[in-house]
Amino acid sequence: MYISELDTPALTVDLDILERNIAQMATLCQNLDIPLRPHTKTHKVPQIAQMQIEAGAQGITCQKVGEAEVMVAVGIDDILIPYNIVGKPKLERLMQLAKQATITVAVDSDITARGLSEQAQKDGATIQVVVEMDTGSKRCGVQSPQAVQALAQTIVDLPGLDFQGVMTYPSRLEAKPFIDETLELLRKDGISVSMVSGGGTGSEVNSKQIGCTETRSGSYIYEGMQRIGPETVNPETCALRMIVTVVSTPTANRVITDGGMKAFTSYPPTPYGYIIEQPEVKIYGMSVEHGHIDVSGSSHRFQVGEQLSVIPVHQGMTSNLHDELVAVRNGQVEAIWPIAGRGKVK
Amino acid sequence: MYISELDTPALTVDLDILERNIAQMATLCQNLDIPLRPHTKTHKVPQIAQMQIEAGAQGITCQKVGEAEVMVAVGIDDILIPYNIVGKPKLERLMQLAKQATITVAVDSDITARGLSEQAQKDGATIQVVVEMDTGSKRCGVQSPQAVQALAQTIVDLPGLDFQGVMTYPSRLEAKPFIDETLELLRKDGISVSMVSGGGTGSEVNSKQIGCTETRSGSYIYEGMQRIGPETVNPETCALRMIVTVVSTPTANRVITDGGMKAFTSYPPTPYGYIIEQPEVKIYGMSVEHGHIDVSGSSHRFQVGEQLSVIPVHQGMTSNLHDELVAVRNGQVEAIWPIAGRGKVK
Repeated sequence: MYISELDTPALTVDLDILERNIAQMATLCQNLDIPLRPHTKTHKVPQIAQMQIEAGAQGITCQKVGEAEVMVAVGIDDILIPYNIVGKPKLERLMQLAKQATITVAVDSDITARGLSEQAQKDGATIQVVVEMDTGSKRCGVQSPQAVQALAQTIVDLPGLDFQGVMTYPSRLEAKPFIDETLELLRKDGISVSMVSGGGTGSEVNSKQIGCTETRSGSYIYEGMQRIGPETVNPETCALRMIVTVVSTPTANRVITDGGMKAFTSYPPTPYGYIIEQPEVKIYGMSVEHGHIDVSGSSHRFQVGEQLSVIPVHQGMTSNLHDELVAVRNGQVEAIWPIAGRGKVK
Repeated sequence: MYISELDTPALTVDLDILERNIAQMATLCQNLDIPLRPHTKTHKVPQIAQMQIEAGAQGITCQKVGEAEVMVAVGIDDILIPYNIVGKPKLERLMQLAKQATITVAVDSDITARGLSEQAQKDGATIQVVVEMDTGSKRCGVQSPQAVQALAQTIVDLPGLDFQGVMTYPSRLEAKPFIDETLELLRKDGISVSMVSGGGTGSEVNSKQIGCTETRSGSYIYEGMQRIGPETVNPETCALRMIVTVVSTPTANRVITDGGMKAFTSYPPTPYGYIIEQPEVKIYGMSVEHGHIDVSGSSHRFQVGEQLSVIPVHQGMTSNLHDELVAVRNGQVEAIWPIAGRGKVK
């Protein structure tokens, strides 16, 4: 089947670019001598996670238990969930996973640690734990090396938990003093650290320099416009394309497509995407079910029924809206992969 | 099951409020003597569409063929799709629907009309058609009464198509001259008009005043913050609530929940939602998987594990992210409805 035969809006990935992005990041991390633990929240596709592991990744990162469930279901056996897992339904699901694979979770409070320990004991499971540090991103995470030290001791003392080390996001050079002091405090307490996990696509060198034992990278898989900026978007490195159809050409300057916010997500609001066939035109707006294109800057005459290939802005949010990813090579459909992690927000 | 036992983030609807919103809009339209054709893109739940029909709606509106498919599957037999349906895969699906129910679609170009006619002939189906008018919203739609006249004649002449009339969105009083002139031109041509469809929650009176034969309203179902504005949000009329869990309390001023942009969508960026239990606090940001709350304005002491009920900003975009809607009355779960139209962007 050719791309042109697809019903639209259709989320597609160019396999040549995808394979190149995977290989390049694998090589980068090998050259840096830092293990890679790809974040699958960007793509949510088990087949792509398996490609990343085959390329040398030591395991994967999933942001939610539901994402980890679909990855364990295809046999992936080493997963970091850098998230405080709280509440009975999630703890029960987590322990089922921990019986099938090596599962590591982040904690930043006594309450989270104790909840994990209680459920692990109840279910006869063991869960690996890292302490999340806030090294400047002002989201979750304990606030000082001393707080890591105290929480680490609590974790070491709690049954069912296996203390591994620490994690932060993103890997900034400014985090080094915090990490160094933390590791020194833990060393003095005789608490061994096997994992210092850092992350963020583009921060691989930083992860190495601040002493991480692994680096988590997600958005490199599609090389999205959000990270690299609209000025430097490059169809040769951006693997994801939304195929949309022109449904209306109401005026000489305005073209409307069938891909709106429910296909692309609404974040961030501009520039809404890059049209590969006509990069000179501008997607000036989106309503919920329509894309609005200003074609005044183009000599191309758009026709109702014509298909356009759009590089979405936020590749992870966009992937989360679709059930299927169409894998394409040279304009032909090679496979249709379920985006099995889509909607797994629990 | 109590709400407090739900895994989170959980999208819930308060049944008392939902039933009241449905009854109030039905009464409003009866009093105005204008038929109501609810837009189901806001909720995407067949059970709610059936409640709207039981309350007197004459049919429903669906924005995409995929939404109409899930509604026809439960026996709803009168559906307007106010959209230009273009391309073979969609036309084939549309004609299958048209054999099972009365399906009306909008067109604003010869190309769309001819595509519909060809497929209708091929499949032995008949499709009802209205011409979409652009009466000021600058999206799809023909630009003048004369353009309606010409396209209407084309539709009347094409086999397989049954011309019904015109549609616009939203119903503005300024549209009356356009509509009046159009109807006069069609009358002179001897083309009979049985449908003048207007829409927009809050525009019911306008629809009546500009001569519509029906009014399409969607967002009234949940009475969302986006329409009424953050200042006037009222938990007694807003039916949708996202239950989230506090997963981190890293500092005295900051609380993090497990509901981020993948649960709430990112549009519009502020104010991100209204917390029913603590309306004095502010959701100041969301990352993809976390909600960020500034609690400096509250004396309440938030705890990891605590649940919060958030009224989302954009109810239709939020519903489109979730597989299930939990129907709740007095804090107890009465039903779990599949959001069968979720992700139906084709």
